[in-house]
Amino acid sequence: MTRVGVFGAGGRMGREVCRAVKDAADLVLVAAVDPFHAGIDLSQLGIEGADLTVASGPQELLDVGADVAIDFTVLDAARDNVRWCAANGVHAVVGTTGFSDDELGEFAKSFADSSANAVIAPNFTIGAVLMMRFAELAAPYFDTGEIIEYHHDRKIDAPSGTAVMTAQRMAAASSDWAPDPTEKEVAPGARGGAVQGIPVHSIRMRGMFAHQEVVLGVAGQTLSIRHDSFDRSAYMPGVLLAVRQVGDRAGLTLGLDPLLGL
Amino acid sequence: MTRVGVFGAGGRMGREVCRAVKDAADLVLVAAVDPFHAGIDLSQLGIEGADLTVASGPQELLDVGADVAIDFTVLDAARDNVRWCAANGVHAVVGTTGFSDDELGEFAKSFADSSANAVIAPNFTIGAVLMMRFAELAAPYFDTGEIIEYHHDRKIDAPSGTAVMTAQRMAAASSDWAPDPTEKEVAPGARGGAVQGIPVHSIRMRGMFAHQEVVLGVAGQTLSIRHDSFDRSAYMPGVLLAVRQVGDRAGLTLGLDPLLGL
Amino acid sequence: MTRVGVFGAGGRMGREVCRAVKDAADLVLVAAVDPFHAGIDLSQLGIEGADLTVASGPQELLDVGADVAIDFTVLDAARDNVRWCAANGVHAVVGTTGFSDDELGEFAKSFADSSANAVIAPNFTIGAVLMMRFAELAAPYFDTGEIIEYHHDRKIDAPSGTAVMTAQRMAAASSDWAPDPTEKEVAPGARGGAVQGIPVHSIRMRGMFAHQEVVLGVAGQTLSIRHDSFDRSAYMPGVLLAVRQVGDRAGLTLGLDPLLGL
Amino acid sequence: MTRVGVFGAGGRMGREVCRAVKDAADLVLVAAVDPFHAGIDLSQLGIEGADLTVASGPQELLDVGADVAIDFTVLDAARDNVRWCAANGVHAVVGTTGFSDDELGEFAKSFADSSANAVIAPNFTIGAVLMMRFAELAAPYFDTGEIIEYHHDRKIDAPSGTAVMTAQRMAAASSDWAPDPTEKEVAPGARGGAVQGIPVHSIRMRGMFAHQEVVLGVAGQTLSIRHDSFDRSAYMPGVLLAVRQVGDRAGLTLGLDPLLGL
Repeated sequence: MTRVGVFGAGGRMGREVCRAVKDAADLVLVAAVDPFHAGIDLSQLGIEGADLTVASGPQELLDVGADVAIDFTVLDAARDNVRWCAANGVHAVVGTTGFSDDELGEFAKSFADSSANAVIAPNFTIGAVLMMRFAELAAPYFDTGEIIEYHHDRKIDAPSGTAVMTAQRMAAASSDWAPDPTEKEVAPGARGGAVQGIPVHSIRMRGMFAHQEVVLGVAGQTLSIRHDSFDRSAYMPGVLLAVRQVGDRAGLTLGLDPLLGL
Repeated sequence: MTRVGVFGAGGRMGREVCRAVKDAADLVLVAAVDPFHAGIDLSQLGIEGADLTVASGPQELLDVGADVAIDFTVLDAARDNVRWCAANGVHAVVGTTGFSDDELGEFAKSFADSSANAVIAPNFTIGAVLMMRFAELAAPYFDTGEIIEYHHDRKIDAPSGTAVMTAQRMAAASSDWAPDPTEKEVAPGARGGAVQGIPVHSIRMRGMFAHQEVVLGVAGQTLSIRHDSFDRSAYMPGVLLAVRQVGDRAGLTLGLDPLLGL
Repeated sequence: MTRVGVFGAGGRMGREVCRAVKDAADLVLVAAVDPFHAGIDLSQLGIEGADLTVASGPQELLDVGADVAIDFTVLDAARDNVRWCAANGVHAVVGTTGFSDDELGEFAKSFADSSANAVIAPNFTIGAVLMMRFAELAAPYFDTGEIIEYHHDRKIDAPSGTAVMTAQRMAAASSDWAPDPTEKEVAPGARGGAVQGIPVHSIRMRGMFAHQEVVLGVAGQTLSIRHDSFDRSAYMPGVLLAVRQVGDRAGLTLGLDPLLGL
Repeated sequence: MTRVGVFGAGGRMGREVCRAVKDAADLVLVAAVDPFHAGIDLSQLGIEGADLTVASGPQELLDVGADVAIDFTVLDAARDNVRWCAANGVHAVVGTTGFSDDELGEFAKSFADSSANAVIAPNFTIGAVLMMRFAELAAPYFDTGEIIEYHHDRKIDAPSGTAVMTAQRMAAASSDWAPDPTEKEVAPGARGGAVQGIPVHSIRMRGMFAHQEVVLGVAGQTLSIRHDSFDRSAYMPGVLLAVRQVGDRAGLTLGLDPLLGL
């Protein structure tokens, strides 16, 4: 049994993480840290059956002998938590985003010197990570490739970060794409927004959450790789995968890809 | 048994039409007209089992007592053929495109005065006609609607005519759409080309022919209506439907919609 | 402004309904009835901003002058509520399922004699209702048709009720389907379960909620009509539609179809 | 420039192969072998621009110095052709199916001793091969997985061989699947046909050719991998890939997977 503590346990993602850890047969939730909810019982945050009091700081992780700490908080808190984990020998699984390259460099060094390891990933949605990887692997065998991403109609930026990253990886994997045949774009924008030459189309649709389809074509056939996610629980399988593997991956691991062995 | 003649029988669409008529149990192919192939046997055009010699002009239709003539030719020829049908009392089913509003007005008058009727339609793909109609019928019950069309990578215009017409009909059917949430379009064009406010996205893909999906969303759900066509044979069910109904629809009928009773 | 009361306001669907009514600009939530939660403030049920105390019985609807009552409860309670609405002149919108044909006959009579009307529907998911209607309308123009339904992996029956009803309506709309070509079913069941001759395929998938696709084919083309729903909120657009129309539809209306005008 | 000869050049696949080789910039079609069409010009088989006379036997390949021979013929002919290639030092790319394990063992030995190599594959549709591989790679990360395959309505067996093989590979890649929740199958067969525990659903649809979708689900998300093929030209990218690589892959290579480097 791996002993797991959760930073930011009272946040929206933190509570989801607590539930996922509690429900996993090979993990045990031993600490919930959250300065904003310190002292209350975890059940008051809607997480039943854990019998834990929320702690105010990371010392609790040492007191209860946590093997791994999970951090989905905010940038300032996460920076401190990651440093604390390296210094105190607790493995870290981190989904908080926004670290600078300098900070990631610092973390790489400190975990190289620590008895603990870390997995820091901008995207724990395992299906999305696989979709990107498969799109990249397939790209060299196709002549055309485009991306269609669908999100709820409260998303203010387009395309999504995942779509941009997918396009970049497809472009890096193959430079040999058929030219765009379009000579007349009757409705400007119809052919999408190009990211390194790969057309990306963003749909904003009520009733949807986060979805993306990569379509690749070559003579007589197409291959479509589609990821649909419906809520925050989509992050959990990737988080648990990282918790199970972090102990065996020396130093700092960036992104889920290395954990998938692809 | 309805007796059918085909104008432009040696053309690509004409040959397809000859085959479809020949294969229909309730129709008999009685005349193949094509000045460019006059005098040869129809089997030399790859249409087996008809035992017909290609005729040079429309007189053949009268000689063999054709009930209906089908025209998929070019604009100049089609104009003459339609006039001839009205004047000579032969029902006309016409898929040639490009008639002016004035010409369509003239045809409406001449078929009103004729013993024959006509169906003239820009699109005989029955599934596409149904898709457009359903999108229009559904539009008032949804808050967001977008169109994604996919064509082979030799198509030089975007969006397709069908996509533009679908958007126009959806916009006419409902003016109550949620506002576009996009504030930042990182890759310009990602949100598609707007046709009367409906975003249209055009994919150009090797290995595809002609496909379109209309996606509509409202709280908690989406409805998607998709048409896929793979080759020219997709026109045939609509052509046969028109041949079967043209005798019962007085005067000129424009488009397949009235024949579908929706 | 239409004044709306909700039976079973403390139930899972009841609370969803309360929220949807409260958020609709042309409706006002005037009464929440629920004997199991009588006397508490609606905000304690997680519905903010309504300033209502939960009432123990239907008399409240008369006291506050409700125009329409919505019932998503259980069969025994719903039976009483519907009778009460007919007797007391309050329009009823009812999503509770399981009424016998005899009971529906009784309701038809009592609402014919009442100043109030009723809409009783087994399925308020507007997109699913449209999907079924479109499948039925399209059926006569296609040679093959099959249904694929996808649900979460806690659903214990297959196919879903919606899939069975869709197949029945397609079969009633057309008896002219191409024969099944299958001579050898290597894995028994691969060709699905037939409902009145229409093959139905049921997928049970973690990460999904409730989805159905109807695929229809004829020469050279297919038409696919797909409904995806992600949670209970999918019922709300149909409920609100019924609330807005019930006053204008004399007597008892069964199902959403008549309200859609298709 | 690689010099390519084609066995069975007058067959349906043979002609397609001749065209694909002729159109590839880095390949040159130097020989067309077909005893049934020996002596006629290749243009009479509908392959323009090659200026070749069809040869009656394999000696032609040596006379013109072919590097690679492609075989899409029938089992008896293919057996002889493969042996001839090994004996005469001409690389072989073979899509003919039906070899016994003994024969494949014999070929492995003879190509190990030959200066020539061979690629023998039951499926040259590159997109289908990638789909199967991705399904296998993804399987361990998901709790549920099902296969839906769509074919034209002249296919007499179900499921397709590709679907069966995909299921076998998914089952071999993961033994940890959630149990089927179905307790009541109202329409027997609705839950599909199980292949090593993976449900497979076969749709037979007019207007389709050959399509397959693998759907995988885990908490909050699904991953779908879909291959659509529209005609025989779908084999060509895989054939050309094999022609380009066969010279560098010592001995006998079975299947396209090793060529894709995945």
